[in-house]
Amino acid sequence: MTLDLALYLVLDPVQCGGHARALDVTRAALDGGVTIVQLRAPEWHKRAWLNLALDLLPLTRLHGVPLIINDHVDVALAAGADGVHIGQKDLPPDVARTLLGARALIGLSVSNDTQVDHANTLGSTIDYVGVGPVFDTLTKPDASAACGIDGLAALCARSVHPTVAIGGIQLHNAADVKRAGPGGIAVVSAICTAADPHLAARQLLESS
Amino acid sequence: MTLDLALYLVLDPVQCGGHARALDVTRAALDGGVTIVQLRAPEWHKRAWLNLALDLLPLTRLHGVPLIINDHVDVALAAGADGVHIGQKDLPPDVARTLLGARALIGLSVSNDTQVDHANTLGSTIDYVGVGPVFDTLTKPDASAACGIDGLAALCARSVHPTVAIGGIQLHNAADVKRAGPGGIAVVSAICTAADPHLAARQLLESS
Repeated sequence: MTLDLALYLVLDPVQCGGHARALDVTRAALDGGVTIVQLRAPEWHKRAWLNLALDLLPLTRLHGVPLIINDHVDVALAAGADGVHIGQKDLPPDVARTLLGARALIGLSVSNDTQVDHANTLGSTIDYVGVGPVFDTLTKPDASAACGIDGLAALCARSVHPTVAIGGIQLHNAADVKRAGPGGIAVVSAICTAADPHLAARQLLESS
Repeated sequence: MTLDLALYLVLDPVQCGGHARALDVTRAALDGGVTIVQLRAPEWHKRAWLNLALDLLPLTRLHGVPLIINDHVDVALAAGADGVHIGQKDLPPDVARTLLGARALIGLSVSNDTQVDHANTLGSTIDYVGVGPVFDTLTKPDASAACGIDGLAALCARSVHPTVAIGGIQLHNAADVKRAGPGGIAVVSAICTAADPHLAARQLLESS
């Protein structure tokens, strides 16, 4: 599956309002141009993750867009999803690669120079890095300190992998974030809580 | 690996006091006669689970005792553990079996007649059921209502699978619990927070 990080939806089904509403949001966001979808439901048990992932796959496949699972390699395997996104405290990237195989997409969160330098040594074990948080955000209370626009630019320039910026990105700051040079922007609430997720996706994609 | 549920240690490394202390507790508890060990660290990220599981395996293998991973099939696969224990909201048993293969040990939590009846239909997809909580416990604040000794006896009699009783089991009630007829008893704090985990294991095993 082709990796296009331009507009990366981190789908939080709780923010969306539950399973059914998360499917509605995803449908609308895909129509609006989202290029990759990650399922992330930290409050949910895995059976609910699996059920939602199984319902999301026909939607993402219809658009030729990858479905990535946050953290849970077992859910990705069980659902037949396209890959995982892992943090620095999740299963190590080489372990995820061994479990998922060569064709899976694997993303890794990086927040500072040390983490980017280590990610740079991983070669094709990972496919992209998520860089951030760019801004402070309420979505992930345990996140690292925000790197800001200039920090984002430096981290993206330092990375040998494709990059996607994440953390506090909304329509009003999306153009500034893009000018820092990431391969794309990742959003959670900007789409999940949008009154019109289709319009939100289109505006985020077109902002410059 | 042989399944002996007589004394089932649910190892909570936070209750033990961290990674190193969890290894000490496990060593002592195995010497004291624990017959199966489950790693359960709900507050921990998976990299810490994996690191501890990898350090536990030589200890459990030395005693010919299975190491089971709570919930996380991916951690079990990555560590080469002997199986998983799953709850009603975790990945479904058939999915866990597919991912782990025929030789893995798979346990399922059951709390009422309906869940036992469903477990009974699963045949060799699962190897045992964890029955409880017998008593209310602070270890698992989201647990189902306690079934009590009489409820435990009824659920164990109803099950076609080997059973292990769990939930609030301590030295002072272990003999009563055993008389209800489970294949064994599972404990968390009774060993993890014991001043002498070796002695605690031995006394729990011998109580009648």
